[in-house]
Amino acid sequence: MRYSFTNILGKFVYDVKSKSIEKAKSSEKLEQLPKNKVNEVLSKFKDRENYTQFYEKNLALTKKGIKASVSEDMLIIQAIANVNELDKVNNILIKRLREWFSLYLPEFENVMNNQEKFVEMVISESKEDLMKELKLKETMGADLKKEDVNEMLILAKQIRELQGLRKKHETYLEGVMKKFCPNLLELAGATIGAKLIELGRSLKRLALLPSSTIQLLGAEKALFRHIKTGSRSPKYGVIINHPLIQRSERRKKGRAARMLADKLSLCTRLDFFKGEFKAKEYRKELEKKLDVKL
Amino acid sequence: MRYSFTNILGKFVYDVKSKSIEKAKSSEKLEQLPKNKVNEVLSKFKDRENYTQFYEKNLALTKKGIKASVSEDMLIIQAIANVNELDKVNNILIKRLREWFSLYLPEFENVMNNQEKFVEMVISESKEDLMKELKLKETMGADLKKEDVNEMLILAKQIRELQGLRKKHETYLEGVMKKFCPNLLELAGATIGAKLIELGRSLKRLALLPSSTIQLLGAEKALFRHIKTGSRSPKYGVIINHPLIQRSERRKKGRAARMLADKLSLCTRLDFFKGEFKAKEYRKELEKKLDVKL
Repeated sequence: MRYSFTNILGKFVYDVKSKSIEKAKSSEKLEQLPKNKVNEVLSKFKDRENYTQFYEKNLALTKKGIKASVSEDMLIIQAIANVNELDKVNNILIKRLREWFSLYLPEFENVMNNQEKFVEMVISESKEDLMKELKLKETMGADLKKEDVNEMLILAKQIRELQGLRKKHETYLEGVMKKFCPNLLELAGATIGAKLIELGRSLKRLALLPSSTIQLLGAEKALFRHIKTGSRSPKYGVIINHPLIQRSERRKKGRAARMLADKLSLCTRLDFFKGEFKAKEYRKELEKKLDVKL
Repeated sequence: MRYSFTNILGKFVYDVKSKSIEKAKSSEKLEQLPKNKVNEVLSKFKDRENYTQFYEKNLALTKKGIKASVSEDMLIIQAIANVNELDKVNNILIKRLREWFSLYLPEFENVMNNQEKFVEMVISESKEDLMKELKLKETMGADLKKEDVNEMLILAKQIRELQGLRKKHETYLEGVMKKFCPNLLELAGATIGAKLIELGRSLKRLALLPSSTIQLLGAEKALFRHIKTGSRSPKYGVIINHPLIQRSERRKKGRAARMLADKLSLCTRLDFFKGEFKAKEYRKELEKKLDVKL
């Protein structure tokens, strides 16, 4: 005699002969229990030994479920969140380095706006070299002792490493996305694509969203303000940084965003249902229609 | 004939014979110009050549002034600001690493609260080792590919380096303070001492503040709320973290703060006026009076 029992995790079968509980295989055909038998079955599960067995099986199944739920989505979400955080961190530290260095050579700090180059030159060139390049005979900066300058240098070196780490993470992100969502990667690029997955919470959910939602992902604040106060509705969310929109003329940007979101939505569906690779075609089509050369 | 001229930067002397402008030496005795001569002198400075000379001398002097104004204060302020920012940065990245790692081995992330040890063990031990230590037979974490795990490892290594950098900066900070304000360093410690200088903007200004202000530096928000709304006045600012206050009984904390601020104020004055080293005595006195053993 075998009794079946259903809970949120699935169907279980209690075998009276072997006194064991197993998960019901989907192929198994289980008899519908007659109404008057339900209590009899439930009483079996009240038995302490049976209950323990059932509890443990259940727990193991939950753990397995959690384990299996870690998908590429989650890796992508962690990686893009990390890339964004590294950007934030780099900004904090570069700001500090700039302020610190301006005690030493303010003229250089004023002139050099490129962050990466600033760090690079602070590391590789001496004060004299920098002054020569700027054609400066004297500086307002203080003559600091070697050990004082050294502290700035080790900070600069750390920043350079953080910048390198950011690049490594981005390469990794591209690698994961290439396998998991090649279409989205091709059309959106790694940063925007990953950000979309992060905002959509998973590729699956993203694939089920209408393209108009994808268009506005990341602009929730402006959207709700629009709904509440009747201010102008936002035209784009995170896709605003996409070159197709960036390079469109101002009055065409809204149209570009709608068309891009359309194709991105198709891409996510192709990727989720393991369809073919069509993103390159889409991209050409968009370039032609929007008259933008990437 | 020599004319003198005063502006905000100092006294200048115009020599008619050599047609040059020099800064007046403080030892020089300059005649007071009779009122009717003022216009004559000013007219000299209207002369284009004289004016240019005067302008350049002025500028050079300003630059020199700025250069000379970079003092140990500013180095200390930069260093402590940097230490604080490194703390912030480390927190951001460790939070990310923890979330990321919890996909892989959530049981470990839950158990290990010590941040530094967490990073260290992620780097040095494999998943199997960690599971053995936690006496785990199985985990809810996913079996990630080697390249996925590797991304977490390089992030962890970067965090470890940042922690090292923070320690280096703190040592440097102590070194600068040891020369510049040994009394303050001894009684307040590097972090609180530097923070006081940052909040006071310079050692000089700090030395001129009343001890009751030093007691509340860093609690400005609570102080103004107290003044505005009549809420309870704050008892301490950044000195709250000082062990003398931390280890005092609750009802004695206010008294401890007042006494500590008193002595700190004396320390800053001793340091600013290059007085003797008395902080050790002060510390012993406070320990005795407050009945706290450090």
